[in-house]
Amino acid sequence: MVSAPQNKIKVGVLGATGTVGQRFIELLAPHPYFELHVLAASSRSAGQEYAKIVKWKLNTPIPEKVKKMVVQECSKDAPGMKDCGVVFSGLDHDVAGDIEASLRQAELVVFSNAKNYRRDPIVPLVVPLVNPSHFSVIEHQRASLGLQKGYIVCNANCSTTGVVVALKALEDRFGPLETIMCTTMQAISGAGYPGVSSLDILDNVVPHIGGEEEKIEWETAKILGGVNEDQKGFDYHASHPLKISANCNRVPVIDGHLACVSVKFSKQPAPSVEEVQKAFREFTCEAQTLGKDVCPSAPERAIVYHDAPDRPQPRLDRDLENGACVSVGRLRECNVLDVKFVTLLDNVRLGAATSSVINAEIAVAKGLIV
Amino acid sequence: MVSAPQNKIKVGVLGATGTVGQRFIELLAPHPYFELHVLAASSRSAGQEYAKIVKWKLNTPIPEKVKKMVVQECSKDAPGMKDCGVVFSGLDHDVAGDIEASLRQAELVVFSNAKNYRRDPIVPLVVPLVNPSHFSVIEHQRASLGLQKGYIVCNANCSTTGVVVALKALEDRFGPLETIMCTTMQAISGAGYPGVSSLDILDNVVPHIGGEEEKIEWETAKILGGVNEDQKGFDYHASHPLKISANCNRVPVIDGHLACVSVKFSKQPAPSVEEVQKAFREFTCEAQTLGKDVCPSAPERAIVYHDAPDRPQPRLDRDLENGACVSVGRLRECNVLDVKFVTLLDNVRLGAATSSVINAEIAVAKGLIV
Amino acid sequence: MVSAPQNKIKVGVLGATGTVGQRFIELLAPHPYFELHVLAASSRSAGQEYAKIVKWKLNTPIPEKVKKMVVQECSKDAPGMKDCGVVFSGLDHDVAGDIEASLRQAELVVFSNAKNYRRDPIVPLVVPLVNPSHFSVIEHQRASLGLQKGYIVCNANCSTTGVVVALKALEDRFGPLETIMCTTMQAISGAGYPGVSSLDILDNVVPHIGGEEEKIEWETAKILGGVNEDQKGFDYHASHPLKISANCNRVPVIDGHLACVSVKFSKQPAPSVEEVQKAFREFTCEAQTLGKDVCPSAPERAIVYHDAPDRPQPRLDRDLENGACVSVGRLRECNVLDVKFVTLLDNVRLGAATSSVINAEIAVAKGLIV
Amino acid sequence: MVSAPQNKIKVGVLGATGTVGQRFIELLAPHPYFELHVLAASSRSAGQEYAKIVKWKLNTPIPEKVKKMVVQECSKDAPGMKDCGVVFSGLDHDVAGDIEASLRQAELVVFSNAKNYRRDPIVPLVVPLVNPSHFSVIEHQRASLGLQKGYIVCNANCSTTGVVVALKALEDRFGPLETIMCTTMQAISGAGYPGVSSLDILDNVVPHIGGEEEKIEWETAKILGGVNEDQKGFDYHASHPLKISANCNRVPVIDGHLACVSVKFSKQPAPSVEEVQKAFREFTCEAQTLGKDVCPSAPERAIVYHDAPDRPQPRLDRDLENGACVSVGRLRECNVLDVKFVTLLDNVRLGAATSSVINAEIAVAKGLIV
Repeated sequence: MVSAPQNKIKVGVLGATGTVGQRFIELLAPHPYFELHVLAASSRSAGQEYAKIVKWKLNTPIPEKVKKMVVQECSKDAPGMKDCGVVFSGLDHDVAGDIEASLRQAELVVFSNAKNYRRDPIVPLVVPLVNPSHFSVIEHQRASLGLQKGYIVCNANCSTTGVVVALKALEDRFGPLETIMCTTMQAISGAGYPGVSSLDILDNVVPHIGGEEEKIEWETAKILGGVNEDQKGFDYHASHPLKISANCNRVPVIDGHLACVSVKFSKQPAPSVEEVQKAFREFTCEAQTLGKDVCPSAPERAIVYHDAPDRPQPRLDRDLENGACVSVGRLRECNVLDVKFVTLLDNVRLGAATSSVINAEIAVAKGLIV
Repeated sequence: MVSAPQNKIKVGVLGATGTVGQRFIELLAPHPYFELHVLAASSRSAGQEYAKIVKWKLNTPIPEKVKKMVVQECSKDAPGMKDCGVVFSGLDHDVAGDIEASLRQAELVVFSNAKNYRRDPIVPLVVPLVNPSHFSVIEHQRASLGLQKGYIVCNANCSTTGVVVALKALEDRFGPLETIMCTTMQAISGAGYPGVSSLDILDNVVPHIGGEEEKIEWETAKILGGVNEDQKGFDYHASHPLKISANCNRVPVIDGHLACVSVKFSKQPAPSVEEVQKAFREFTCEAQTLGKDVCPSAPERAIVYHDAPDRPQPRLDRDLENGACVSVGRLRECNVLDVKFVTLLDNVRLGAATSSVINAEIAVAKGLIV
Repeated sequence: MVSAPQNKIKVGVLGATGTVGQRFIELLAPHPYFELHVLAASSRSAGQEYAKIVKWKLNTPIPEKVKKMVVQECSKDAPGMKDCGVVFSGLDHDVAGDIEASLRQAELVVFSNAKNYRRDPIVPLVVPLVNPSHFSVIEHQRASLGLQKGYIVCNANCSTTGVVVALKALEDRFGPLETIMCTTMQAISGAGYPGVSSLDILDNVVPHIGGEEEKIEWETAKILGGVNEDQKGFDYHASHPLKISANCNRVPVIDGHLACVSVKFSKQPAPSVEEVQKAFREFTCEAQTLGKDVCPSAPERAIVYHDAPDRPQPRLDRDLENGACVSVGRLRECNVLDVKFVTLLDNVRLGAATSSVINAEIAVAKGLIV
Repeated sequence: MVSAPQNKIKVGVLGATGTVGQRFIELLAPHPYFELHVLAASSRSAGQEYAKIVKWKLNTPIPEKVKKMVVQECSKDAPGMKDCGVVFSGLDHDVAGDIEASLRQAELVVFSNAKNYRRDPIVPLVVPLVNPSHFSVIEHQRASLGLQKGYIVCNANCSTTGVVVALKALEDRFGPLETIMCTTMQAISGAGYPGVSSLDILDNVVPHIGGEEEKIEWETAKILGGVNEDQKGFDYHASHPLKISANCNRVPVIDGHLACVSVKFSKQPAPSVEEVQKAFREFTCEAQTLGKDVCPSAPERAIVYHDAPDRPQPRLDRDLENGACVSVGRLRECNVLDVKFVTLLDNVRLGAATSSVINAEIAVAKGLIV
């Protein structure tokens, strides 16, 4: 158990008025040691009180202390920005690239939900319940750029996150996977606001989400893979190259990405269904072992395993562990690969803002945020 | 081109007040040569006018000529039953077994949507766009039971039907498949009425439909397989045993089962995506070549191939070809098997009543219904 | 019975790529005597083939003959525009005002679904099943503007249309109404595309539609009122000023606006529920009596009265009469006003494009389109 | 401020496995002074562990301490029943009548969510935020039946509850109302489980809920009316008889009943919109003034007034005050009556179980439960 930081750490939120930004604020307002210090958004919003310009879309009210905070521009020169121990980015990818880089260049620490740097070979792509070990590449990132403090960490795409936590439990216990097939049924909130038109999704399924399948297929290898021995990059699961095929669908569900996953193990004969179930039930990760003091946003159970034959379900199970876990169920043999199962992730919490926040908590424990 | 029968053929409907029964009536009321003669339902309904007891759930009105027809019991002795050239069964499986057998024993021809006899080794399981060649086993069925005229033909489960039409197009062109993985997103109407509780499915997906995955895995082999040389049974794709793994999910869609399908061909190297697309586009089946006179319910296009990257979609495409075709789209390479694509079926039409009706039309052409 | 025009009448569609424009095309492509001649849209789309730029959102396919038509600009100078006997406008209100006026000034006849000229004191606001008598003001409109041929006719807002047809049946039989209260539950398609965000409406009702309540309260008086004796304007129901109070809500329904309506008659004692039901059942309007030759888009029944206690319902009844009628049901006494009932309108057909087309058909019969 | 009871009070739940029963358990498991002692259900369930037989449908998990409780029969002789200070009834009305009466006869205190005794002239029909003063008739109820302790209290129908809290705020400030018109849009959870078939409500609205309109029209008068001077019955608002007209609709929303309400005051000229808004904002009720010690389930704000023009909305606002308040918004003048507004109620909490529990808490404060 690591103890919590002695003093509060000031934090900023980029894209504070957007969907992900609202989630950051909901999570950070009551946080025991992160303190909301800067809310930044587009220059159109800058200079105004948060409550007056945000189109708040959560079913919890705007935190009182945030209502009157004056929104700043997304710039290193915004008042208070330089005092932030970490800046959380909920920016859209079309603007995230430049802004995040410029903040890093100004020696700020950026934890980003945007996709821009996920494939950058010196940026850790971290799912907090899976691969915080990748933080070890930060030193190289700083060195490469001639920085003392600044760096960027990305969290994964929401649909990748839901699947990769379950896969990690399997690799931890049984060694490398060889093949993964998955079909997702993803919630509308994953597309932001206004996002999906109601005319497109009511009484319908859209069997296509632009770029999503490639993200699952690519990000999974980086996340499940290790760090190179010199701590200067990632191995992308090179010793056992993963074959991954993903199908992504949008369904009329508010929150919660469901996925049907089949896997084949490198090790043969493959573990039995009973052994696999045990691996899911017993999975623990670093965020849990660090303890609630330093990782207050981590779930009690990283994976919640469901015995009922028709679970997990988005509406009934997405709130488990305050949205910070992955649900797994329907485990059974696969006639083609070895075993198959269903995963559920709260895409707006562990699939987005919650991942960044737990990542930052782990970084605090590792002395990477001060 | 075969010509239509000279005289109208009287037909009966079992389970006429149920969901599938209503579809049979909607299809048969305007049929050019089938003539609704007997509507049969539970003894509770027998003796009453159809319009007075049915809870009509279609968005087309009850056909005028059907409204005042008096509902009969599901018995060979019901008035008019013996005059029926074919009896369509929309019965629930809990009663279908005995009733269908007793009608067959009374020398009646039964085309059934129920699951009871699908696995019977002497009963053809026929998807009309795929395997009407299996009708050749009818003679053996009659002989086995000492019958002159009576027999049973089943159509497939709705989720099987949607997938197997696309697979047939591939086997016709490229030879036997080896491996199939599919994940379905199925409409609520597939569960009948009242069926799925709204509290279970609104803002939700249920990743489980009892028995459905086994049906896809089992029925596909019987349907895609051939008939034994002696015409006394089926070979279940024995020369190239199929490996099939299915995941079935219920989604909040009224009508239309969507499936994400990956396949691997026996023949390697596998055909290219372009060749596969061509096979889908050029697929034709016996029901089409028989012509509109004798097969008026058959679609113009058995497979409608969609170029748009986000199609087919249930709400936009389920009405194509009056619900009698299968839509295919999103064809691309699969990182694990050879190619993958999406299929869509109107589960209440081609997935149920329409299949039985086209099957019967083909049987008329083959002289099996008189 | 009036006979159909001898020759086809060329027609144009403004806003041809939008939601209402697509409905115009769906209705006009198979029309017996209107012939699609010009498709006009924004200058961004002009010069390109229709099928290549439209985001087609109907569940019927794009009509074949339309696919390759080249889209023009919305200008009197667009090739072919001057040859159009009538131009249908599905433009958004932010551009409709100027364009429609300039076409009229160029002696073109414009039938518009936009709101811009609905309150213009010389423009008829016509619900085709209610007040085609208002066409008599067209002569004055032309004279005022120094025109020989050109004029504008508007159809009503969709939510007004659904209610006012039922009210017309009551005024025809029982004389002027005094008080009307109505609460609508309106479909998402009423907001166009992309329109309502799915995050705003799934598992939700939004009790507010900007400007909608005022439209019902204002338009109803113009439509139910008469024409001044000099045929130079409208009386807005002046002899019996209407008290109308409307509440408008958006519900998660694709198509079909439902309204709960209570009314009080001027004449007291009020008619009985039985008399009112008879009035609904027996209502006929000019569009029907003109006959199918000249008014092919008019419904057989202007009002479909439902006996079932839980009808009309949007999903089950919106397709009645091909979307060109109003459904009425649940008629009963009101404890506060006299009687109350429920109305249903297909907002994308009779509530929009179909109204314009029937209006034009009636204008043809009256010699106002040649 | 009244202080909480010194000792825990044992409580029972009738119909513990049903929809309302599950809500009772969710509310009572963490209750500071009520202690779940008896879970009772049908004899089919009796004798078995709760977790093994319940079809739990809430998105919070079954409380740990409840899982292994053995379900009893709904009888006064069930083990532990006699020790219960209060028994909460979530029974269906078809069995509630006899069971509740027999428990009362056995000197038990029953707080019921069923409709059976709501119209009984000696049974208080209590909305906890409105008329706990009606508890004064309990003494007469006991005396009439020759009982020392036993009595029944009902809470109101869910749709009535949502409206009547807002009306109470108006009568408190401005004196008696004269006329009320309301149209509800009610959630599917109001119909229990399985309740509404998904085929009936997806992409649809059902403009009819059996008996619901009569409940609003009748119950409102009893609840808003006073107690007779002799404390032996209710006056049903007799000095100013209410004219109420209700329209009830089912919409595809999980939880939360919305209502559009128009009212006319007896006092004329009517209060201004500003005065009415003030009355909503400043409304407080007895359950609040008793304090959190004895009324822990009461909301901080009985009415939450919304300034945003499009609020309240079911999905965004139903969780306010943990579902124990009524939301009011869209206040404006009515062209027919005086003012109109929108109300929202969480039908499964304040509309059902929460009302019973707060009622019981108030009864504790009044010494009616010991």
